[in-house]
Amino acid sequence: MADRQVTRPGVEKQLEQVIELLHRHELVENLVHRQESPRHELVETLVHRQHLGALQQLLDRVHSADIAYVLEALPLDQRLVVWDLVKAERDGEILLEVSDAVRETLIAHMDEGELVAATEQLDTDEIADLAPDLPREVILDVFKGLSTEEREQLRAAMSYPEEAVGALMDFAMIEVREDVTLEVVLRYLRRLDQLPDHTDQLFVVDRDEYLRGLLPVNRLLVSDPETLVGDVMIRDYSSFQPGQDARDAASAFERYDLVSAPVVDGEGCLVGRMTVNAVVDYIREAKDTETLAAGGLSEDEDLFASVWKSVRNRWAWLAINLVTAFIASRVIGVFEHSIAQLVALAALMPIIAGIGGNSGNQTTTMIVRALALGQINQDGARKLFLKEISVSALNGLIWGSVVGLFAFLIYHSWQLGLVMTGAMVLNLLLAAVMGVAIPLLMQKFGRDPAIGSSVMITAITDSGGFFIFLGLATLFLV
Amino acid sequence: MADRQVTRPGVEKQLEQVIELLHRHELVENLVHRQESPRHELVETLVHRQHLGALQQLLDRVHSADIAYVLEALPLDQRLVVWDLVKAERDGEILLEVSDAVRETLIAHMDEGELVAATEQLDTDEIADLAPDLPREVILDVFKGLSTEEREQLRAAMSYPEEAVGALMDFAMIEVREDVTLEVVLRYLRRLDQLPDHTDQLFVVDRDEYLRGLLPVNRLLVSDPETLVGDVMIRDYSSFQPGQDARDAASAFERYDLVSAPVVDGEGCLVGRMTVNAVVDYIREAKDTETLAAGGLSEDEDLFASVWKSVRNRWAWLAINLVTAFIASRVIGVFEHSIAQLVALAALMPIIAGIGGNSGNQTTTMIVRALALGQINQDGARKLFLKEISVSALNGLIWGSVVGLFAFLIYHSWQLGLVMTGAMVLNLLLAAVMGVAIPLLMQKFGRDPAIGSSVMITAITDSGGFFIFLGLATLFLV
Repeated sequence: MADRQVTRPGVEKQLEQVIELLHRHELVENLVHRQESPRHELVETLVHRQHLGALQQLLDRVHSADIAYVLEALPLDQRLVVWDLVKAERDGEILLEVSDAVRETLIAHMDEGELVAATEQLDTDEIADLAPDLPREVILDVFKGLSTEEREQLRAAMSYPEEAVGALMDFAMIEVREDVTLEVVLRYLRRLDQLPDHTDQLFVVDRDEYLRGLLPVNRLLVSDPETLVGDVMIRDYSSFQPGQDARDAASAFERYDLVSAPVVDGEGCLVGRMTVNAVVDYIREAKDTETLAAGGLSEDEDLFASVWKSVRNRWAWLAINLVTAFIASRVIGVFEHSIAQLVALAALMPIIAGIGGNSGNQTTTMIVRALALGQINQDGARKLFLKEISVSALNGLIWGSVVGLFAFLIYHSWQLGLVMTGAMVLNLLLAAVMGVAIPLLMQKFGRDPAIGSSVMITAITDSGGFFIFLGLATLFLV
Repeated sequence: MADRQVTRPGVEKQLEQVIELLHRHELVENLVHRQESPRHELVETLVHRQHLGALQQLLDRVHSADIAYVLEALPLDQRLVVWDLVKAERDGEILLEVSDAVRETLIAHMDEGELVAATEQLDTDEIADLAPDLPREVILDVFKGLSTEEREQLRAAMSYPEEAVGALMDFAMIEVREDVTLEVVLRYLRRLDQLPDHTDQLFVVDRDEYLRGLLPVNRLLVSDPETLVGDVMIRDYSSFQPGQDARDAASAFERYDLVSAPVVDGEGCLVGRMTVNAVVDYIREAKDTETLAAGGLSEDEDLFASVWKSVRNRWAWLAINLVTAFIASRVIGVFEHSIAQLVALAALMPIIAGIGGNSGNQTTTMIVRALALGQINQDGARKLFLKEISVSALNGLIWGSVVGLFAFLIYHSWQLGLVMTGAMVLNLLLAAVMGVAIPLLMQKFGRDPAIGSSVMITAITDSGGFFIFLGLATLFLV
């Protein structure tokens, strides 16, 4: 077994090792700062260097993606120590891997020359990804060093919004003609040093770059070498347009189990390709953005962002919620007279509002998900409305009875219990109607229903719940 | 351009076509039911058949994954009409593609013979995926038809929990020996009809199935055919163990841009492979489960599930929230005397509780995300606590002043305003401490912090917010 290299250690382990070495390094630094005797300093500096050396050796063995991971997990000061130790020729790929927030901190720490050097190592589609975060001068410098074709590619890749196929595509396609034999293709490939990553198929184009078919590498391997490309190529395939929503492409990759797919322009000419790794990254990022957005957070906040930056990141969401809370507060204010007469109302009203919010959010979660999967059509919407209203009516009766009983047991008033039950049923019905209507309306007006639906539902079920409960109480009890 | 087949139409378009044909079919059915004259019936039945025929033709052209999509989007009755029209030999792969809830409805509609036939077309790893949903007799029947090796594979695949690598792996590996030339490998491949999907590399094993390296297909294509496999194979690669958490594998695929990877047992022998399409499906499903779980929904509820099933799916969550709402209600109940004297408290208290919940959930979202990425270590946790507390203190002062001013403007009492401000600061600090502590503690005790953290935070900031505000008011105002 001696001749066999072990497989990669887990990235968590690598992070632990880095942190341990950083700690030793910091320990030594603290000593140096405290003890100012020159002899001591010399000794400590040597030990200090030794630790950094060990760290550097460790980092050299670590995959770039794992270094990105380590950088994400470190507070700013330690992050920059590690960043300085990373070999300059890997700067570019690591910058690509880290999150936007961490990338910003790393770029702020580099000078123009370093940035140009880091960027120049990258493919044009990767430069396009990095470009929005780079200083203007760096981009101009890099641009000058590109060939005409590369400049064209860079311009194309940068011209699409982040959520378009064009922003995710790369240009590492191998193209072949349909009137040659597989033997010729095999000989052509053998002349290359290596094939681009994720080359599971070759692109069959004519003289005008018009895409005529796809030649899967696996077909190339099992077919008779005398066969013509045109006879074994695939003509029925999924292709995308650069302006198309990346979500469509991601669904297609998931559904048809693709590894790569052609991107063609309006005339059917090949302009690039999508690969599954870009799709995986896209899915992950979309998920992340969604999770954060659900809490009103933008993705610009890294874990160790400054307090001030975090406050700014979170304030918009809190402000919106404050406005809805003020409105709910004024709804209650209208009924202050009733509450003064029957103070139990104050203790009971949050129950009606809270459960309404929960129920509404359940409905919205179902609808948003179905919308994301494209599963709701005119016909379905009507059925969904009916279903959700029935579910809420039933839930309202069940839970309304429970809260009614609760109110009766505490306050010994069956009238109060009945008002609770009635308010619960009505608020859950309101929650159901809004839970279906709000995401559908947002979708209709071209907004993302996954973002914001929840605040609106909660705002309505809060104010609505208070109004319904206090209103019923004022009518029947006071 | 006449010789070129168009690329696949979008799946949404296919869904529309199916629905249109179903509508025509239903229209005719309604006519048949209404008009009982025999001549009419005959005519209508013919038209009716014609529409179903058109639908069947359409379905035959549609990719299995797209049929699964269409089935998901249709209410039960229409779903079963379409399902009956699908060619029997595609039943198996379609059952694999649909969600658990829809699969259940389809299986309930099939007899034992159909189920056995559908299952027998699948690979062993796919049978393992389907098995939990199949009747016992069907599995036994299918099992009898398998070879010894396949039975072994099926047993292995079924022995792992859903979130383990073993449950996601397949067995479609091509194995080669390291002491043969690439020429021999190429000739061997050419004897096969086709290679398994996602064959981006061959697995180099010895006589005992011990994995010695990987031979990427791309290297096979560009290298000199006279070279030995052992000289070009990769020895430094990621491999997984069948018992490992699928999340680890998914991260590795994402980080290292893998298309396939070997799964080895404790001795280093090859037992299966993971492919990127299994990983993409896993990521999607994990995301889906998480989104639903955040609203207290299990994934068993399909869009058109029965009302009763939906009520059951949602009741646990509502019950938990009801308990926390009751507790909050009793906290208010304790201060009823204060509220009776100063009824403004009732109108203002939901503001303190609500904003506390929002702020706490923002903190938790950040922490849960960092935990999922494995980015929090001992050192980081302390820093995060400090950061979140500082953010909350600052937010408390800012928003506390706003609500204090609001209270002053409405009720003309600066004392009330000050109590609002103080309560806001304290509740946001409580939210920060709990927002960090709860997910960390859940993680420590082996529970998923993404599920349940939010309910706990909200429960604490609700009850805590009422207690802090009403308590301060009782001390200083009443």
